[in-house]
Amino acid sequence: MIKNLIFINVLIKLFVLLVKNLVGLEYSDKLYKKYATLSRQVNENFINIHPIQRGGVLTPEAQKVLLEYGDGYSLCDNCLKGRIDLIKNPPIDEFLIDFAKFIDMDNAMPTGAARDAKRMAITALKERFPERKTVIIDSLAHYSTYLAIELNKLKIKEVPNSGDTYFEINPEDYRTKIEEVKKEEGVTPLLVLLTHVDYQYGNYNDPKPIGDISKEYDVPFLLNAAYSAGILPVFGRELGVDLLSCSGHKSMAASGPIGMLGFSDEFVDNILVPSKIHGDLTDRSFSGKFCNFLGCPPVYGAPMMTLMASFPSVVKRTQKNVVEDEQKKINFVVEEISKIKGIEVLGKLPKIHPLTHIKTESFNEVAKSHKRRGFFVRDEFKKRGILGMAPGISKNMKFNTYGLTWDQVKTFANAFLDIAEKYDLL
Amino acid sequence: MIKNLIFINVLIKLFVLLVKNLVGLEYSDKLYKKYATLSRQVNENFINIHPIQRGGVLTPEAQKVLLEYGDGYSLCDNCLKGRIDLIKNPPIDEFLIDFAKFIDMDNAMPTGAARDAKRMAITALKERFPERKTVIIDSLAHYSTYLAIELNKLKIKEVPNSGDTYFEINPEDYRTKIEEVKKEEGVTPLLVLLTHVDYQYGNYNDPKPIGDISKEYDVPFLLNAAYSAGILPVFGRELGVDLLSCSGHKSMAASGPIGMLGFSDEFVDNILVPSKIHGDLTDRSFSGKFCNFLGCPPVYGAPMMTLMASFPSVVKRTQKNVVEDEQKKINFVVEEISKIKGIEVLGKLPKIHPLTHIKTESFNEVAKSHKRRGFFVRDEFKKRGILGMAPGISKNMKFNTYGLTWDQVKTFANAFLDIAEKYDLL
Repeated sequence: MIKNLIFINVLIKLFVLLVKNLVGLEYSDKLYKKYATLSRQVNENFINIHPIQRGGVLTPEAQKVLLEYGDGYSLCDNCLKGRIDLIKNPPIDEFLIDFAKFIDMDNAMPTGAARDAKRMAITALKERFPERKTVIIDSLAHYSTYLAIELNKLKIKEVPNSGDTYFEINPEDYRTKIEEVKKEEGVTPLLVLLTHVDYQYGNYNDPKPIGDISKEYDVPFLLNAAYSAGILPVFGRELGVDLLSCSGHKSMAASGPIGMLGFSDEFVDNILVPSKIHGDLTDRSFSGKFCNFLGCPPVYGAPMMTLMASFPSVVKRTQKNVVEDEQKKINFVVEEISKIKGIEVLGKLPKIHPLTHIKTESFNEVAKSHKRRGFFVRDEFKKRGILGMAPGISKNMKFNTYGLTWDQVKTFANAFLDIAEKYDLL
Repeated sequence: MIKNLIFINVLIKLFVLLVKNLVGLEYSDKLYKKYATLSRQVNENFINIHPIQRGGVLTPEAQKVLLEYGDGYSLCDNCLKGRIDLIKNPPIDEFLIDFAKFIDMDNAMPTGAARDAKRMAITALKERFPERKTVIIDSLAHYSTYLAIELNKLKIKEVPNSGDTYFEINPEDYRTKIEEVKKEEGVTPLLVLLTHVDYQYGNYNDPKPIGDISKEYDVPFLLNAAYSAGILPVFGRELGVDLLSCSGHKSMAASGPIGMLGFSDEFVDNILVPSKIHGDLTDRSFSGKFCNFLGCPPVYGAPMMTLMASFPSVVKRTQKNVVEDEQKKINFVVEEISKIKGIEVLGKLPKIHPLTHIKTESFNEVAKSHKRRGFFVRDEFKKRGILGMAPGISKNMKFNTYGLTWDQVKTFANAFLDIAEKYDLL
């Protein structure tokens, strides 16, 4: 019996090994059907309130260039010097100057994403200040902020937040933390980092007082504006920001992935580091390429062109009137759904940024006896033409009304109330 | 006089300072016109022979999903676990298994680009073998290979090539270089790297003998297949490859940027490193995210979806009959243009990969007395409906016939001959 089992086991292992070692993959109709006919279910028939998608919805101008510049390296048509930031046709060189003005920084360079911008900025500072070991961050920072610090083998020190239900940051706590680092390590922290608008509660934090504190201690200040730049006005220098990370696909109506790193003149030599390596045999060298960007930032076609095509609209939508209208929309929704029993809005109110997180205890109660369990929430909204809820979750919900029309916003709020009525929660 | 000059100088400086410090950027019709109406001049009215664009031209299937998945984070519609490689709808999880089969590697993960795949692989190996300091590369390696090594603060050792005109690599030189490193450093090199098809001459190098040598010395072997995987058959394990970098926008009909890193089971724990950082105050942690990928590989919409939609066609086009037909096309062009005086094909012949580099000494002679100087080459081709030449260059030329129809290939070759005839070079 045991012998038989061992034999069968060996056979199975041999079979797995055999299958694993079949070389290559054959073309088949099945393969074609599986991948070549994929299509997205989320389309213009639905109102999409996905929390991280609203700011990245393309403008009509971006959709146009998306097709024209969809091919891999389409931005290289007229590249003369092998570097994207120097391309004149289309005018990427001028765009980077205009973009820097837009975010009120001295310089701007494209990156793979906002997370890459953070990673690169931290690496650059570490090279400049090798004796400094700690990065101070707000405790609501994006997970990729933690990972960028980990990847750079640095220590983290979190600034507390007030917890449930407002999750507020007290800027003065940054001072306390800087003092702690000075005491513990004998040097200032490497960097002070603030998440302008956080991804958990959509809380807006004023960078100015933290900018002032960081200046006082002469510590560089990085503002992660992945959720804000392109949605709210962001003026880096005015806020005392030294380094600023932005996201095209998150907040600037660009096809991903593209980030932007804004930086002050003081850090130019640390961010734009020309390659110094020489081939030991050939003496090949690449002094025209930036080492930390691996030569060219990887945004060769669709990402860069959609960002540029959307840019005028993005400049426009960060003006006071549009920003205020967007705030009215989200605060209208917040007010409407507050009528529902067992729903609580987390984070600061009134909303400044439309990313919103709510606790839906009453939905969770319904889910317990619903045959579709937690999926009933998504089902009910989908029936009402609304998509973007996390599947299977009924305890809480994140949504974002950015860029929806007032009609869509009202439909969304009404769907909430309608579902509440159905389950007797009004 | 001098006083006046100083005064004017100060005034100018003040003015520049003032302009630089104007906060923000105003929306204007000019801004709209400048960025929102950009369009690409290279389109279906032209035959595009750009050396690095041919493999990235989208399939019709990719063009379709490009529009549907153009929005920033469109791939996150049905994300359950916050990691792209686990998404089941669309079936990214299965695609990564199919892709690994296609390149004959145990595993595959998307990256920002092939250069990122190389950078990450080298960082991973450095963590595993901290005592090893040197990477051995072929001397025709892509510049980003050099930069990835520089960024990791490692030493480089180049394997020579035979120089003008064939630029051949002798696999046995890898053995010599490994022995040199062992002697000089007392340990084996960190990595042996081969560029499967190089970007300068489009030379194809057989990885098998180098894979065998690297196995003999127990040194990991990375094959940079940025120009080959998707164009030619690449079977990693069969070739003794441990790590394999591929490029979607270069060679797999994907909208950039997207790379792929294939890796053997032996290196899973080095490549897929779960985050270990903990918030010092909140104890927040992210063990479900891969630290070195900063959480999610940045291919959230168009890049991943176009790669998947094109995948069946890419599998098909790397089969023998298509590969051979593409080789016939490029060798036909090579044969035709060899009739022109003062033109010499660089690199090995017959061509295996369609990326081709020619010395055009006779064009350079023409340019000397031409009123458009070096630009005349591009002008003449453009007149004949052909685009993709580097602007202003007449000394040499790089082109690529990949994926052109036979009619287009003949038109291209005839354009060459026609221009040659015009300038009396036949």
